Amino acid sequence: MSEQQKSSNVVWHEGEVNRADREAKNGHKGVVLWFTGLSGSGKSTLSHAVENKLFQMGVHTTVLDGDNVRHGLCGDLGFSDVARRENIRRVGEVSKLFVDAGIVVLTAFISPFREDRQVVRKLHQAGDFIEIYCAASLETCESRDVKGLYKRARQGEIKNFTGISSPYEVPEKAEITVDTGSLSLDESVQQVMHYLYANGIVIK
Amino acid sequence: MSEQQKSSNVVWHEGEVNRADREAKNGHKGVVLWFTGLSGSGKSTLSHAVENKLFQMGVHTTVLDGDNVRHGLCGDLGFSDVARRENIRRVGEVSKLFVDAGIVVLTAFISPFREDRQVVRKLHQAGDFIEIYCAASLETCESRDVKGLYKRARQGEIKNFTGISSPYEVPEKAEITVDTGSLSLDESVQQVMHYLYANGIVIK
Repeated sequence: MSEQQKSSNVVWHEGEVNRADREAKNGHKGVVLWFTGLSGSGKSTLSHAVENKLFQMGVHTTVLDGDNVRHGLCGDLGFSDVARRENIRRVGEVSKLFVDAGIVVLTAFISPFREDRQVVRKLHQAGDFIEIYCAASLETCESRDVKGLYKRARQGEIKNFTGISSPYEVPEKAEITVDTGSLSLDESVQQVMHYLYANGIVIK
Repeated sequence: MSEQQKSSNVVWHEGEVNRADREAKNGHKGVVLWFTGLSGSGKSTLSHAVENKLFQMGVHTTVLDGDNVRHGLCGDLGFSDVARRENIRRVGEVSKLFVDAGIVVLTAFISPFREDRQVVRKLHQAGDFIEIYCAASLETCESRDVKGLYKRARQGEIKNFTGISSPYEVPEKAEITVDTGSLSLDESVQQVMHYLYANGIVIK
């Protein structure tokens, strides 16, 4: 590109598409809905149900969960405390890239450590990070044990299993606490949607 | 969530929003436009100019480049060969997450190693990965030296600098080769757009 072009590039860069442009086009803010809770607490189910609702309303969405992250971006990580921290850090950074792209990104990871969730919160601008605690109790999650993971953890076949051999630190200031141990899925979705309406994140 | 809800969850999961849904809503495919080339070859400028054009047309886009990745997702990585490989691998995985979200993602990284670009290509479905070689020569890039990096690399202040102390492996089968050493920015954008029209990735 010639000298002249380089000058025009500079002008051009002032016109780079930015987050505000994307949000104006999409008709809604980019935010992250960060679902946290024990294995079996309903994070993945609830996040996908909320996404479906949002998508039907015309909101631009995506879900990050173990299915599309643990084998890809974080395929090099195990389940030690250090590896889990790095997993959450990367998911946090990727969620920011989606928010900057004007998208509502829903993440479904146990994310057991308060400090790690705080690190992700601080990556984001105020109001962009919405922590949603799926508050089913260990007893409830273990009694469901849909994937048989709790049984294996109790037998020592799985190490560092949250709730059994590794701690889960309950959120102290989650924007939304959903009692997924007793609410139906529809009720849980409604609770999340109510927050999003009440805070002007999406419009009915 | 009750047993009944769990059953309905199973049904529900069949209705998860998928890539085809997102693409139908957006009115275009998700693809990655992978810009590669030497430092100063115009990757970042061209990718942002193409994004601007696409965005004005109503296409849902985002750009991944050093500005939003190197300090965030890949902030733990340096510039050794191993670290560069990991950088490109992560960017490749994130580009896939955006493609799955139905977005046209433009990436602007030197990505000097053929094998690494091949790894990213293989992550994607056929047709989703469009390699765009910004083919300005080393002589041209070094003579521009907008950021003074080549000078510093020649003086040994920057190690592993592509083109000087670390190789750049020219793409053998790039979908698009843009002669950014002599074309204007407008001409370069037009060449990329022509490919996207001709291959039905976006519609005029």
